[in-house]
Amino acid sequence: MNFRDFTPQHFLCRLDGKVATITLNRPERKNPLTFESYAELRDTFRALASADDVKVVVITGAGGNFSSGGDVFEIIGPLTEMKMPELLAFTRMTGGLVKAMRACPQPIYAAIDGVCAGAGAILAMASDLRYGTAEAKVAFLFTRVGLAGCDMGACALLPRIIGQGRAAELLYTGRNLGGVEAERWGFFNGLLPRESLVADVQAMAARLADGPTFAHGMTKTMLHREWAMDLDTAIEAEAQAQALCMATGDFRRAYEAFAQKQQPKFEGN
Amino acid sequence: MNFRDFTPQHFLCRLDGKVATITLNRPERKNPLTFESYAELRDTFRALASADDVKVVVITGAGGNFSSGGDVFEIIGPLTEMKMPELLAFTRMTGGLVKAMRACPQPIYAAIDGVCAGAGAILAMASDLRYGTAEAKVAFLFTRVGLAGCDMGACALLPRIIGQGRAAELLYTGRNLGGVEAERWGFFNGLLPRESLVADVQAMAARLADGPTFAHGMTKTMLHREWAMDLDTAIEAEAQAQALCMATGDFRRAYEAFAQKQQPKFEGN
Amino acid sequence: MNFRDFTPQHFLCRLDGKVATITLNRPERKNPLTFESYAELRDTFRALASADDVKVVVITGAGGNFSSGGDVFEIIGPLTEMKMPELLAFTRMTGGLVKAMRACPQPIYAAIDGVCAGAGAILAMASDLRYGTAEAKVAFLFTRVGLAGCDMGACALLPRIIGQGRAAELLYTGRNLGGVEAERWGFFNGLLPRESLVADVQAMAARLADGPTFAHGMTKTMLHREWAMDLDTAIEAEAQAQALCMATGDFRRAYEAFAQKQQPKFEGN
Repeated sequence: MNFRDFTPQHFLCRLDGKVATITLNRPERKNPLTFESYAELRDTFRALASADDVKVVVITGAGGNFSSGGDVFEIIGPLTEMKMPELLAFTRMTGGLVKAMRACPQPIYAAIDGVCAGAGAILAMASDLRYGTAEAKVAFLFTRVGLAGCDMGACALLPRIIGQGRAAELLYTGRNLGGVEAERWGFFNGLLPRESLVADVQAMAARLADGPTFAHGMTKTMLHREWAMDLDTAIEAEAQAQALCMATGDFRRAYEAFAQKQQPKFEGN
Repeated sequence: MNFRDFTPQHFLCRLDGKVATITLNRPERKNPLTFESYAELRDTFRALASADDVKVVVITGAGGNFSSGGDVFEIIGPLTEMKMPELLAFTRMTGGLVKAMRACPQPIYAAIDGVCAGAGAILAMASDLRYGTAEAKVAFLFTRVGLAGCDMGACALLPRIIGQGRAAELLYTGRNLGGVEAERWGFFNGLLPRESLVADVQAMAARLADGPTFAHGMTKTMLHREWAMDLDTAIEAEAQAQALCMATGDFRRAYEAFAQKQQPKFEGN
Repeated sequence: MNFRDFTPQHFLCRLDGKVATITLNRPERKNPLTFESYAELRDTFRALASADDVKVVVITGAGGNFSSGGDVFEIIGPLTEMKMPELLAFTRMTGGLVKAMRACPQPIYAAIDGVCAGAGAILAMASDLRYGTAEAKVAFLFTRVGLAGCDMGACALLPRIIGQGRAAELLYTGRNLGGVEAERWGFFNGLLPRESLVADVQAMAARLADGPTFAHGMTKTMLHREWAMDLDTAIEAEAQAQALCMATGDFRRAYEAFAQKQQPKFEGN
């Protein structure tokens, strides 16, 4: 699959070098998700698993907001009319988007300004790295619409990122987590100015894309696989995974460059 | 079971609206736990599983301290005389209290001032949310009496709340963690003034109790169930749990209220 | 085994009271690890499992640096020439060092100044407690040499210490984490002055060694065993482990000392 030819219907997608940027783009509604955009996002991340021309992904939102989450009128309204098989099909579809984001080999950066709410906050958590602005507001709004915090993996993801106590608070109350506090708690990896947020994140992504991308994919796979492994099991799993990376040309090239006091050129193989 | 009729022997218990407040109440001894109060607390949280009139629980201590933990003369002394079956029956009984706190559907707030030590610190961890004062002192004292840090689930709970390294320090050394540092580390969700601590926490609890309490119970269940699940398994478990919440009246009522630009009234069903 | 008679070839080792200090000692190269020093470290920590005269371990580096990790010319070069069985034997050997550090009963303090990179950073994580200086620089350099972050258990250890998001950042980018930030994130338990770092950590270690060392060993065992247990399982495991500690003389002696208003003298049994 060649990502360069990919033209999604429900969001913007561009490729700069080896970095794909996905931009949620209904700024007048703060970039809500709809049945169609959920499914297309899931299919896009599934397709990225075999997109050899993309090495790192950036996900962001247009117009000063990340995403307001599932649209009230286009999603929540119809859900209140559905029978259980349809409801479960929907929650499995949205969960499938998170699974696809964790399963593709490319590290994913989320660039987050303004509103980052509900399913938008889940997309942020399903990313590998999150950079935000001081003006960003992250909220797990499910409780506001009568739902539980257990949406798309949130009760597993959020405690791992910010700890069990802080995660419980955000999930029970649905309160806004401001950008500064989000950085302090480790939800954001760093704060960036609004003006340069996306460009700065794309620059970081480009540097990562110049690194050993096969190895990056293995790092991502193992961060995922070891989620619930005991430590001795994880150590054996890493012994195998790293031995595999030591058989790559990137490892040999890095050593040769170092021996010659040069910068290594990684090829992702 | 109707909680309003409940009159415990070894601590205070009152119901304000849908919020039950449990107050450890031997202030002259800093509210220690005894064999009888452990067992009665465990039975109380077990009973809360079917107490339909209670939606959120607050646990606190009288007289400016939370709890000094297992009483030296009433618990530790007798333990040193016991044979193994009795010792194991005791540790299973105290562990049973933590299990009951995690198993009841009501979110639990701990309001912590002054001494919060030993089993008192475990009660705090077994709560969902912890608010303290700058004057609070949290200490895992087990090491001071020749015991291990693995008491009532502490080696599982504490690393999830504050991280593995900081947890190890507190468990090995038994040192005091002050309120300000406890907030910085995510052990406390926030700091409150001594004068208004309990009232402030009760107000937060009341707001939560006005929310979708069936969904809150599902959030609590899933935070517990997903503790050691791999992420893909957790996502499927949440797909089922959230689909179930989407079939509730609270979800429909929230949508209808939103569509009419009103505040939703949740009924917990 | 009597640790006092132990004379390693590839690092310094001394015993002060009940505290063993292991010092990586090739300061002119910032204390790199070699095939021989890896294996000897692993064998040392394995031997510590039965070293009754050692109750706490301090690991540090000579000359103002902790460790630069696997030596480029002595390890990375040869690895690029190896076939898969040899590569896997190597990654299993280095992983075996981490397993041995987690399996010995003694709590391990890492005293970290200057460079703490690659496998050096893993040794720090495999320790129970980490104290550093403001001048310390921790870096997971694997990505710089074309490898994945999954080395010796890093993808399991680092998220537990500093959270999933910050761990991902360090493992993907290989960037330096300075001492001040390392303390803020919970990677370091505290910051100490360079001049007194090792002495200060040894003093803390000596205090721990005067405590109930059998119980400390149980704390360490349970922090390890409960890594991926669900909470109810962990609570039963702790009920057994703590009941066992209640049958020790240290527990009885602590109670008797308390009743007599004296300081307890622990004997580790």
